[in-house]
Amino acid sequence: MKVQRICATLCMSLFACLVTPLHAQLPRTIISPEVHPDRTVTFRLVAPQAQRVAVNVPFADGEQAMKKDDNGLWSVTLGPAQPEIYQYAFNVDGLTVVDPSNSWLKVWLRNSQNLMLVPGDEPLFYEEQQLPHGTVNIHRYQSKSLGVTRGLYVYTPPDYEINRQDKYPVLYLFHGFGDSEDAWTVVGRSNIILDNLIAQKKAVPLIVVMPYGHTPVTPPVMRSLGDYAAFEKDIIEDVIPYVQQRYRAGTSQKDRAVAGLSMGGGQSLTVGLGNRDLFGWVGAFSSAVPRDEKLEKLLAEPQSINDKLQLLWIGCGREDFLFKDNQAFLEELKAKNIKYVANITDGAHEWRIWRRYLNEFVPLLFKTAAMN
Amino acid sequence: MKVQRICATLCMSLFACLVTPLHAQLPRTIISPEVHPDRTVTFRLVAPQAQRVAVNVPFADGEQAMKKDDNGLWSVTLGPAQPEIYQYAFNVDGLTVVDPSNSWLKVWLRNSQNLMLVPGDEPLFYEEQQLPHGTVNIHRYQSKSLGVTRGLYVYTPPDYEINRQDKYPVLYLFHGFGDSEDAWTVVGRSNIILDNLIAQKKAVPLIVVMPYGHTPVTPPVMRSLGDYAAFEKDIIEDVIPYVQQRYRAGTSQKDRAVAGLSMGGGQSLTVGLGNRDLFGWVGAFSSAVPRDEKLEKLLAEPQSINDKLQLLWIGCGREDFLFKDNQAFLEELKAKNIKYVANITDGAHEWRIWRRYLNEFVPLLFKTAAMN
Repeated sequence: MKVQRICATLCMSLFACLVTPLHAQLPRTIISPEVHPDRTVTFRLVAPQAQRVAVNVPFADGEQAMKKDDNGLWSVTLGPAQPEIYQYAFNVDGLTVVDPSNSWLKVWLRNSQNLMLVPGDEPLFYEEQQLPHGTVNIHRYQSKSLGVTRGLYVYTPPDYEINRQDKYPVLYLFHGFGDSEDAWTVVGRSNIILDNLIAQKKAVPLIVVMPYGHTPVTPPVMRSLGDYAAFEKDIIEDVIPYVQQRYRAGTSQKDRAVAGLSMGGGQSLTVGLGNRDLFGWVGAFSSAVPRDEKLEKLLAEPQSINDKLQLLWIGCGREDFLFKDNQAFLEELKAKNIKYVANITDGAHEWRIWRRYLNEFVPLLFKTAAMN
Repeated sequence: MKVQRICATLCMSLFACLVTPLHAQLPRTIISPEVHPDRTVTFRLVAPQAQRVAVNVPFADGEQAMKKDDNGLWSVTLGPAQPEIYQYAFNVDGLTVVDPSNSWLKVWLRNSQNLMLVPGDEPLFYEEQQLPHGTVNIHRYQSKSLGVTRGLYVYTPPDYEINRQDKYPVLYLFHGFGDSEDAWTVVGRSNIILDNLIAQKKAVPLIVVMPYGHTPVTPPVMRSLGDYAAFEKDIIEDVIPYVQQRYRAGTSQKDRAVAGLSMGGGQSLTVGLGNRDLFGWVGAFSSAVPRDEKLEKLLAEPQSINDKLQLLWIGCGREDFLFKDNQAFLEELKAKNIKYVANITDGAHEWRIWRRYLNEFVPLLFKTAAMN
């Protein structure tokens, strides 16, 4: 009962000024992380009994120890940091913990991590601005092919609900192994990136469908490691019909694109190359290329791929552990005279890169292709 | 760089079987909490360096110490527990931390807490079942009255996107002081409760609008403590027009209800009683009754309230710290001959009660009222 009692006590003190005629200021709240105008960042954690507290954040080189004041508040100021979205977590006496003052969380396979934004002088392409916003629609649908109820996120562009006659092209966008169907919005900020691209007229207004990428498994294994065939069946037989019944989605091949990151990049190659009558545009970001018989069969039809696809876009960072594999895949495409656009960049296997890839890939869609 | 390195290393080992022809099983994942068939629950946390680890969960009486095995895995089995949704958190050497194995989180004012469900023999009214599901639509809208961009959750009933001609009545549903616009879905499970009520034909299909309840404040104060007037202006001038432009929402007073919990209950009284030409149904759950001049003025018009409202529904638990205040409010309504339905129950100021209230309140809406 202790948790409830603590909550009730806190509530009571907070509500004192509501239920009486008195007004009082709220108790001071810990602000963490606090991003200062010079882009240094202060992290704070109340942990009076801890022996050692540190923070792990990519813009500092290695774990950074924090210092305790007399009230048990640990803090450290780091940076300045480049404008970027960073993941971080605290280390309290050897245990990785999230920042209780920060509600922006990435729920990863094991340990959740916090996210934080260091803003630029000009708004970054994934910063929310004062312009029309699209909607993120969360569905639970019955996958007949998989026999389970699954989550599905759908982004609709600004004023979709108002322009009741228009039809829109659709991008099917797949997450990576560590993620769920919310990752492309919560971490990838796809909705904000799309809002910004559409406002700048860099992208045509479009619908983005973000399904759950794992297929059912038996505990204690928590996630499937890319059963691409079962996933493909769900997309073709369940997700696409579900979306087309509910959204004003274009139904021609040229109005349908597919892309994904890592595991989802492998899935987008399988789904996109394998269903060229359904998808006209394919993107693979830092993808786990499925080196299986099925892909080899698909790549054995270069002429059909070239004829049907408007765009085959392959992005990978040079520090990515999948870089060599992607390089080999590009060599194979070249050897087979399959047309593609390669986007070799800096960076590793990280969301920083995937936000950029989305921002570069989407403006190419649903327009005349420019392939090599 | 350490966080990224850890992630990259983990990714690499996980992907080994994807990018090579070999297949391997995933590394064993910690399952916590694990609910056993007899409704006992095992909590687990890996914390090799910790001196003391305990869990706080309401179905156990007080904080429960956990025991460490040779691998640094702490665990304890508690219960059996009554079927219910519980909040819990770990205490690691004095620090409250969330369970890294559980992604169902309630992000509270300070410390986030995990949620867990102990299922019933028959599915509970807030358990997801295999039946048609509605959609939760997340909007970001520009509040002209407050001068900021704000979040707004909208539930649409099953097949809303398919039945393109139908109009639906609307419930405006407000969260409490510790919450945000996602609380009524993430913690309150309003979407699942509505899916179940609609499938059982206990409720008419309806739209539920869940706005953000706090008004802008200056840091370090993080949340407004119920500036009901500014909130009311946002609802009337921004939220309702935004919703009516985008949804097939009934526009008559009899098609519009308002309810809320705690701070949101106070807001629903202000908004509902103060705009009787807009709202026909008002619910206040464990509400922070605003004992201000404005409410006194509103209550000075009992005849108009009785004529216009189909339902004024007041719910409160006997152990709630706001119970006395709600009792006094009911006395005042009685003294003024204002018609109401009172629902005095067991329970304190807690989500367990608010889920039940929603489940009891919604079936009364948009039908002929039955007041005392």
